[in-house]
Amino acid sequence: MSDVLFTKPAMAELFSPRAMVAAMLRVEAALARALAVPYDIDDDVVSAIADACRVELYDPDAIFAEAATAGTPVIPLVRMLTERVDEKARRWVHWGATSQDIMDTAMVLQMGEGIELLLRELRGVAEHAAALADAHRHTVMAGRTLGQQAAPITFGLKAARWFALTGRQIRALVALRSGMIGPQLHDPVVGTIAPALPLQFGGAVGTLAAFEGAGIPIAAALSAELELPLPELPWHAERDRVATVAAMLGVTAGAMSKIASDIALLSQTEIGELSEGAQPGKGGSSAMPQKRNPVDAMSALAAARLAIALVPTLLAGDHEHERAIGAWQAEWVAIPHIFRHTAGATSHVRQALAGLEVHEDRMRRNLDLAGGTLMAEALTGAIAAKLGRHEAQRIVKAECDRALRDGITLAEAAVEDTCTAGVLSREEIEQALDPTRYLGSTNDLIDVALSGWK
Amino acid sequence: MSDVLFTKPAMAELFSPRAMVAAMLRVEAALARALAVPYDIDDDVVSAIADACRVELYDPDAIFAEAATAGTPVIPLVRMLTERVDEKARRWVHWGATSQDIMDTAMVLQMGEGIELLLRELRGVAEHAAALADAHRHTVMAGRTLGQQAAPITFGLKAARWFALTGRQIRALVALRSGMIGPQLHDPVVGTIAPALPLQFGGAVGTLAAFEGAGIPIAAALSAELELPLPELPWHAERDRVATVAAMLGVTAGAMSKIASDIALLSQTEIGELSEGAQPGKGGSSAMPQKRNPVDAMSALAAARLAIALVPTLLAGDHEHERAIGAWQAEWVAIPHIFRHTAGATSHVRQALAGLEVHEDRMRRNLDLAGGTLMAEALTGAIAAKLGRHEAQRIVKAECDRALRDGITLAEAAVEDTCTAGVLSREEIEQALDPTRYLGSTNDLIDVALSGWK
Amino acid sequence: MSDVLFTKPAMAELFSPRAMVAAMLRVEAALARALAVPYDIDDDVVSAIADACRVELYDPDAIFAEAATAGTPVIPLVRMLTERVDEKARRWVHWGATSQDIMDTAMVLQMGEGIELLLRELRGVAEHAAALADAHRHTVMAGRTLGQQAAPITFGLKAARWFALTGRQIRALVALRSGMIGPQLHDPVVGTIAPALPLQFGGAVGTLAAFEGAGIPIAAALSAELELPLPELPWHAERDRVATVAAMLGVTAGAMSKIASDIALLSQTEIGELSEGAQPGKGGSSAMPQKRNPVDAMSALAAARLAIALVPTLLAGDHEHERAIGAWQAEWVAIPHIFRHTAGATSHVRQALAGLEVHEDRMRRNLDLAGGTLMAEALTGAIAAKLGRHEAQRIVKAECDRALRDGITLAEAAVEDTCTAGVLSREEIEQALDPTRYLGSTNDLIDVALSGWK
Amino acid sequence: MSDVLFTKPAMAELFSPRAMVAAMLRVEAALARALAVPYDIDDDVVSAIADACRVELYDPDAIFAEAATAGTPVIPLVRMLTERVDEKARRWVHWGATSQDIMDTAMVLQMGEGIELLLRELRGVAEHAAALADAHRHTVMAGRTLGQQAAPITFGLKAARWFALTGRQIRALVALRSGMIGPQLHDPVVGTIAPALPLQFGGAVGTLAAFEGAGIPIAAALSAELELPLPELPWHAERDRVATVAAMLGVTAGAMSKIASDIALLSQTEIGELSEGAQPGKGGSSAMPQKRNPVDAMSALAAARLAIALVPTLLAGDHEHERAIGAWQAEWVAIPHIFRHTAGATSHVRQALAGLEVHEDRMRRNLDLAGGTLMAEALTGAIAAKLGRHEAQRIVKAECDRALRDGITLAEAAVEDTCTAGVLSREEIEQALDPTRYLGSTNDLIDVALSGWK
Repeated sequence: MSDVLFTKPAMAELFSPRAMVAAMLRVEAALARALAVPYDIDDDVVSAIADACRVELYDPDAIFAEAATAGTPVIPLVRMLTERVDEKARRWVHWGATSQDIMDTAMVLQMGEGIELLLRELRGVAEHAAALADAHRHTVMAGRTLGQQAAPITFGLKAARWFALTGRQIRALVALRSGMIGPQLHDPVVGTIAPALPLQFGGAVGTLAAFEGAGIPIAAALSAELELPLPELPWHAERDRVATVAAMLGVTAGAMSKIASDIALLSQTEIGELSEGAQPGKGGSSAMPQKRNPVDAMSALAAARLAIALVPTLLAGDHEHERAIGAWQAEWVAIPHIFRHTAGATSHVRQALAGLEVHEDRMRRNLDLAGGTLMAEALTGAIAAKLGRHEAQRIVKAECDRALRDGITLAEAAVEDTCTAGVLSREEIEQALDPTRYLGSTNDLIDVALSGWK
Repeated sequence: MSDVLFTKPAMAELFSPRAMVAAMLRVEAALARALAVPYDIDDDVVSAIADACRVELYDPDAIFAEAATAGTPVIPLVRMLTERVDEKARRWVHWGATSQDIMDTAMVLQMGEGIELLLRELRGVAEHAAALADAHRHTVMAGRTLGQQAAPITFGLKAARWFALTGRQIRALVALRSGMIGPQLHDPVVGTIAPALPLQFGGAVGTLAAFEGAGIPIAAALSAELELPLPELPWHAERDRVATVAAMLGVTAGAMSKIASDIALLSQTEIGELSEGAQPGKGGSSAMPQKRNPVDAMSALAAARLAIALVPTLLAGDHEHERAIGAWQAEWVAIPHIFRHTAGATSHVRQALAGLEVHEDRMRRNLDLAGGTLMAEALTGAIAAKLGRHEAQRIVKAECDRALRDGITLAEAAVEDTCTAGVLSREEIEQALDPTRYLGSTNDLIDVALSGWK
Repeated sequence: MSDVLFTKPAMAELFSPRAMVAAMLRVEAALARALAVPYDIDDDVVSAIADACRVELYDPDAIFAEAATAGTPVIPLVRMLTERVDEKARRWVHWGATSQDIMDTAMVLQMGEGIELLLRELRGVAEHAAALADAHRHTVMAGRTLGQQAAPITFGLKAARWFALTGRQIRALVALRSGMIGPQLHDPVVGTIAPALPLQFGGAVGTLAAFEGAGIPIAAALSAELELPLPELPWHAERDRVATVAAMLGVTAGAMSKIASDIALLSQTEIGELSEGAQPGKGGSSAMPQKRNPVDAMSALAAARLAIALVPTLLAGDHEHERAIGAWQAEWVAIPHIFRHTAGATSHVRQALAGLEVHEDRMRRNLDLAGGTLMAEALTGAIAAKLGRHEAQRIVKAECDRALRDGITLAEAAVEDTCTAGVLSREEIEQALDPTRYLGSTNDLIDVALSGWK
Repeated sequence: MSDVLFTKPAMAELFSPRAMVAAMLRVEAALARALAVPYDIDDDVVSAIADACRVELYDPDAIFAEAATAGTPVIPLVRMLTERVDEKARRWVHWGATSQDIMDTAMVLQMGEGIELLLRELRGVAEHAAALADAHRHTVMAGRTLGQQAAPITFGLKAARWFALTGRQIRALVALRSGMIGPQLHDPVVGTIAPALPLQFGGAVGTLAAFEGAGIPIAAALSAELELPLPELPWHAERDRVATVAAMLGVTAGAMSKIASDIALLSQTEIGELSEGAQPGKGGSSAMPQKRNPVDAMSALAAARLAIALVPTLLAGDHEHERAIGAWQAEWVAIPHIFRHTAGATSHVRQALAGLEVHEDRMRRNLDLAGGTLMAEALTGAIAAKLGRHEAQRIVKAECDRALRDGITLAEAAVEDTCTAGVLSREEIEQALDPTRYLGSTNDLIDVALSGWK
């Protein structure tokens, strides 16, 4: 069900069996071209192979069915591909490569496209969050810690935090994609760079043995054909790069679940500060017509859990010798799973933000719940300036207790309390209890967060 | 048992309850200093607070025992600290901060030191691996895929892969530490940078409300006092940075388990190509005196599993509102756990490599197991040049089958087979079957990998 | 920090290094007694060994420090134990056993005690839940799905679900402890039973070789000495039993996090239907005196996350050959960790329920939020009896929309709507919208759930 | 890719979107029948609904595409189903049920069938293992701990351990299926039983409100229709049963990976004691014709990792209020994933055992590796009877060291050593070093393990 639920269809397509076959064929075609010059292969041979590398010529189901016995889909694929070309071309098909060269490089190509797709969704999230931050910089609401109203914030600040959070994911994935991040070899002296998503090409045991010492330029040519960086070494059994990609997607999925969690919590009937936008067929319940479920937040939360759960599978780096037995193969399922569900989390958050309804009046009204006691810290500050912090805390604690017990407001309790009334006028008390005056650096912080936006 | 097993004692110490208290006190002292100028606080008041922030004045057990009820160790700690200073100083203790400011910043300080410690261990691993790669660049051994001998490599190439793998972890952690990696805001236009391990300082709900709009310079001063970067926003409930640190340590632990796995596998009695160095009391068994268990590899494998398992706990980014209820608190256990066991994995790999015994003769002899059929690919190549690849594969397959069935060598089977003998002389066959002649670009690849070393 | 945070101190003590040493010594002493008859060993020799098996004679720190090099704490322990007895006794110390026999059996003893401790806590949880269910069987409150008010329930029903959930954990753990659950061999014909927590005793490779064919009765005697079941076979590398214990604790931790989650959500300022009992120093905030944080729910949620995260480490059953290299050793940390934090989750839930304050008035008032539209399903039912379900749904949907839009109650909207007013009298409408009349089988379900209680 | 790789096709089919729709329709049809008596519904109405519940009438893709917006596939499914029946029948479609009632019950039906399928595979594994145990009870081989030869065992004992391990999984799953295991309420007094896989039926918030107090008999009727146990309470947000199923499958997957790991390790070229059976297209390599990869072991190892990784997702029991937002929905992907890959692990182990080739000669020859020093413990025992254990250990340690250093056998070293020769004759030394005489209770243990077989 992982292909149809809590994903983005375009990402599911990008990691479908068919897309995997297409990517492997792209690598086989590129290999033929990379071999052409050093082995002086005729153009028509190269063309014949490239021609036979069109995915529509193959049946992915048949290939993966055979893979269960063969141990890898490359064995049936190469056999079918070889059968499609004439005698002259056959010897150059897959020449010098090993199954893992093809599968890893194909997966790298897919992961590259997958990251691009994720970045588009994340940029959508960031745009919406920034617009909300800017529009609601003065929309006061309760800040909540451990589920309790604590002190006022603005919804703009919350959205600015979403924006910064999403922005950090964008920058991390851009860096990952461009090779500036992740385990890398960027020694300025040597110039050798091995970014997170390079070519895999080493032959059976990573020595490029079939090329009799001339393999490195062929690897470089293949790398150029596929526009993939050339790593310092083949990496069949050193999977830190794949692990880094998986881990970074896990961080992104977690980041999306933060935003989804905020939306879900603020959409609770009793809080009612946000609603996901109405849309035909969305979030309703035939039996309960009053319900407008935050379906996108729900889907994002489900997707993020699913994405994160498979990360440890890819962190476990103990791949045996020159090629693992089990650990590598599990990646073929785990990587697509993580991409699909990270995309699902991101895409659903984007949709939730796109139509988000912000109920400012409800935000304002909720500040008065609990008698406005969320302003206690502010009142304490005002009294502390006169009586010291310790005494101020004692006084306000008593006033809060009384307000909550007697169902009056903190303002009423304070005005009636001689301790406070002795040092603050009614007007000073009211000012101290005004949420809009207790926002500290909120506006400046929003400016800082949005400074990179537009 | 996590403090005493599969860790490095120095790392366990660095994340002990006492060290946590010390780090929190360091933050409280720095806060007093940061407040001094804007609030014009007397030097002796600041000194009094700083003086009371010596860890030896506190009982960590008492603090954590109270924390179970209070919900955080900061509440008892601040109370005790406040009691230690006179009336004049009391109001400035912890002024404007929230518990999470102190705990997060303290954890950032500890993580920074933890990464330094890890880097020292990793550099030790890299040094040993590079030395092995250089010394053994011509030590031929079997390359193995899925546990089967596949084709020859050199031990130097394997060690070069360990070196490159470790080098990538070093570079990733250096970048993480220096803020060049991880979710970050490095827009060249804006100049605002928010690296992976910044200050946390926002007050109760992240608005710096207690400072009445003047909080950002105080945050900057605190940041300078602690030599920590200033983030664009407080990040109480956006945990991508912590998740990134945890994930990167998970990748590093996985990388170490790759090396440990290779050592464990190559130390098997039947392979016998490596042994961990002998040492009094190490890896023996009173009942089985012949045993020399690869105890460091074993410990590294156990440690890596333990480190990786807690990573998803930190990836789950759904921290509620302005402060989470449960998810944040779980970090207090999970982060130390991951640091301790990643250090354990790294440290045990370093020790294993430090005394590693390489049995070159056994590596050479193992190549002849299975009648030297691991050279089949090479022989196929030689015949293919004459008869085409398809025919060559058929011939060599038959010869391998015969060799394995009759217990003769592949050389003997090939010489006796008219198909091969028809196109290759005995000398050519022997050359084709010489492992030292089928190493492709091994030596060049080692050079590339080591180019950044020394 | 795992020993001091989010655990129950008694459980932390039960899995401390010292307790591990004590349990291993208990096994060594029992072994000496089990050997006495078959080998005709003098009573004073057995007594001398048993005497030397008092934990206070040993320094756990020294043992675990040596263990890092030796690979197991049994090697130093047996050496120290042997040194403590005279020549005559020495040969019988640890005779025929392997390190893993001692450590696994010791761990089984500790797990047995750990389960007893958990059961005590769980029974406390169940008692509190049952009392709440009984006391509040008529306390109407909103039932909520996806965070939205959906239809009324009673708090008694919710507490009855907590009771049943906890009861299932109790029964599962009782069964686990008594051998009626978990992977077991309970063929009535054969009579051989291998419950979840049996003796481990097989010697170096599980053949009982040292006893020259007479090992099984010795295993039986040892099993009787320790009051542990005898398994059908030694199980050094088949860890399904340990995995089952870990998994069941994970299920229990998850169950506790359900109750904690309900408490945390219902304690939100805006819902305010539950509070954890007040207690000096609990859940407060010096800066925000109005706060009463649900600290026990928070701690239970953190503990449950931590317990669950390490379960997969123990599910991974791929222990090599006759004893694993890494996977087994990781259990020494993982098992204590899971016990500690499952106990933490359970104990904090017990404390939360012990002092739970139920705000019935708030529950009642919250039903009127959103204009009482949570009764829409009930109203639909009443209209459907006259106009069919489809038409009824259309009508009530429109009335809900109006109520929510115009800020009136659903009752008002229905009375004013001719569609409804045409088929239902005002009294019928009010009856249909009375939450106490739309509780279905709530009371009977509570009876069923509590039928096993008292 | 999770549907096509590392699974068993029949299990993938059982959890396909189409099968999910079929199961949900089965529940809807049963509900119509369960309502017939209490509501006196005409037979033709019930038949009309049942008739419309044939899966071939629906397009699963369309249903799941809509589900992404609706939040659940039940909403579109019920709409389509309702459209298929006439006015008279419409009101009874889905009457009184909530989406989760349908989905959970459908999932329980699928899980029941899934467990049956797993049991068939597991019984196949057990049969093969028992046959191997019986056939090879005297086939001596090296027992290995931490990868080192330790002392002799027989292959029969190893296979008997596989049998017992698999047998425990069978019994656990049989018990789980039949309700005798897992969190359950089996109080003999009350008679209420709530096994692991019961009906889910409670209506919107679990009160059966639509049935006005008459819901419990309807639930009982539905339960009878579907042949599913009736739980004590609806369990929409208490997921311990689902968690238990997932956890038990995780234990089973881990158990299968133990057997796969043994096969993979014993198939290593250098050990060569086992091979997976040859089969056209299996485990070969075009480039390396000598290779016979243990592809089934590899696939089982990959599958087990994938199955286990998602278990924690289901252990996290914190489902909010009366229905979760995210955690429940994630089960729709996680449960099929775990079933698919546990089946994959089991099925591949069954195939590996079905054709397993046991190389007895190689097992025998490997005992002589390392000069037969794996018999050191046995020799120590023989000398200890004369000179005490401490002295015997010293002597044999020295002899082992000499044998390994000088490349002679332990027998030679012992014969030449006056310490040993002084107390044991050459014949006694040879007997002590005969692996077939140092098997302890191996044969009896095999008998115990197999006593339940046949």
